[in-house]
Amino acid sequence: MIVDIHGHYTTAPSALSAWRKAQLAGKTVELRISDDEIRESLEGAQLKLQRERGTDVTFFSPRASAMEHHVGDAKTSADWSRACNDLIYRCCELYPKNFVPVCQLPQSPGVAPKESIAELERCVKMGFVGCNVNPDPSGGHWKDPPLTDRWWYPLYEKMVELDVPAMVHVSSSCNPNFHATGAHYINADTTAFMQFLTSDLFKDFPTLRFVIPHGGGGVPYHWGRYRGLAQDMKRPALREFLLKNVFFDTCVYHQPGIDLLLKVIPIDNILFASEMVGAVRGIDPETGHYYDDTKRYIDGSQTLSAADRRKIFEQNARRIYPRWKVQ
Amino acid sequence: MIVDIHGHYTTAPSALSAWRKAQLAGKTVELRISDDEIRESLEGAQLKLQRERGTDVTFFSPRASAMEHHVGDAKTSADWSRACNDLIYRCCELYPKNFVPVCQLPQSPGVAPKESIAELERCVKMGFVGCNVNPDPSGGHWKDPPLTDRWWYPLYEKMVELDVPAMVHVSSSCNPNFHATGAHYINADTTAFMQFLTSDLFKDFPTLRFVIPHGGGGVPYHWGRYRGLAQDMKRPALREFLLKNVFFDTCVYHQPGIDLLLKVIPIDNILFASEMVGAVRGIDPETGHYYDDTKRYIDGSQTLSAADRRKIFEQNARRIYPRWKVQ
Repeated sequence: MIVDIHGHYTTAPSALSAWRKAQLAGKTVELRISDDEIRESLEGAQLKLQRERGTDVTFFSPRASAMEHHVGDAKTSADWSRACNDLIYRCCELYPKNFVPVCQLPQSPGVAPKESIAELERCVKMGFVGCNVNPDPSGGHWKDPPLTDRWWYPLYEKMVELDVPAMVHVSSSCNPNFHATGAHYINADTTAFMQFLTSDLFKDFPTLRFVIPHGGGGVPYHWGRYRGLAQDMKRPALREFLLKNVFFDTCVYHQPGIDLLLKVIPIDNILFASEMVGAVRGIDPETGHYYDDTKRYIDGSQTLSAADRRKIFEQNARRIYPRWKVQ
Repeated sequence: MIVDIHGHYTTAPSALSAWRKAQLAGKTVELRISDDEIRESLEGAQLKLQRERGTDVTFFSPRASAMEHHVGDAKTSADWSRACNDLIYRCCELYPKNFVPVCQLPQSPGVAPKESIAELERCVKMGFVGCNVNPDPSGGHWKDPPLTDRWWYPLYEKMVELDVPAMVHVSSSCNPNFHATGAHYINADTTAFMQFLTSDLFKDFPTLRFVIPHGGGGVPYHWGRYRGLAQDMKRPALREFLLKNVFFDTCVYHQPGIDLLLKVIPIDNILFASEMVGAVRGIDPETGHYYDDTKRYIDGSQTLSAADRRKIFEQNARRIYPRWKVQ
């Protein structure tokens, strides 16, 4: 079985964005989307690509760039998150073999993460297996405390209790310095890893688990730098004190990048993912295939054993997202 | 000849930081450092490592983390930059075969980059061959306009006139989210590249040149992503519209990272650098050598020809820093 642990509902029917527009204009409208509209939005996109690429299941969460935690207030985010998560639930009910639900959280700048607990609990009761945690609800201004601050601890206590991991995933950027998918996403991944490296978060939460998407941002490419920084700071080796809790996905859109990831990061810490239909939608003229068809790069690796591939494609996901098994 | 284009005076005599401390306390003191003190600060550090590693020349600039453009006001930065650059000049006068001067600029948050022109001109007249441009003078809050904004154009006009390139280099971070050398540095590199990718800056300045340090941040690892993003935006191929103006150094502290850099980035765009004595000072237990002894990784590459090595070690630097030739 091939499990893609990182997909967003980027093709949701336009009624969703119309609802959002009305919400931000202060109008109350009902969100009406039929099952057929949902089917239509998925059949020609994620489901078609699953079939074409030979992947089986996608862990499916609301569109990351549309979380927009920096827009409106806590109630805006709460209502929007509920609407988006409910729609994800419906996708997964319609295609239970193809999609497994992951939720966004109703974060807001300056609002304590514990305010997200109710929505996380609601979703997990509905069968969601993980959540996306935005390390920068301000959308590129980085005003809230680091992920390792006690500010976040009540949410982590609940994640541990529910046994759900979080993907560290920012939303769009309202800082003109940061292009969303080209800078803000990659920066957030790198930033989160370094926050973990400089803290004792996982002493306090030995079973807390984070997936850093987009291949870990800049981290694997600079793995020597991070090993060396940890060493200079008299921290333990990264494998010992971070890699029981921190994992990387394979959203790296060329063979040399994936080869590096597979070389420097232990196989137990790598989860297959593509983020399709996502940030990069074209076909690479150098290969003739979609940039984000990351299965080809895993298949194309010269170094993986069959056992390694099973871990990356399925077994690591079962270990890190144990609620998936429950279903 | 082997030219390391990225070194900072991280070992300056303590009188320099004492001067800075006095400056920030509003006291006027004279900066007194003898030639012998300078020699002593270099002989056991950068010069020793040059000899041990077999490199010849270092492009030498003030300590990046100490630029601290976010501290004080424009006058604070002007005085501090002059002091630091003058000290670099003295190092290069004492060891003209070993060091070539590169300056920091007196930037300040909210202060137009054109205010840095006078110091750039002063330094170039003294023989400096390049400058460091901080894309975020606010130190991790990213409050000023992107590098591609017209805000920066007067400085670029002067850089073009003087034919000096800039290294894009942030200073320390005063945002608790960003560890300086582990997150802020790498993020800034990635951010700058994406700013360039989304702009027509190099249409306006066809001969303007930037070196993105630390191996280009997260960019080469995600080269497929950047090629794909450019393609989705209907931009020309990266090689055509960015790589005449944007270059990467080799400050990547492990063999797999350097191998990836050499594989995906054209050789003409790669400049040898180590940033020693810098962010990572230890010895890698996996190799028994200093993490930042990047010459070993270039030497260890299985794919480079002798001609490629000459480009990376010397010829690209001569092309991109033409004032070096003049000396």
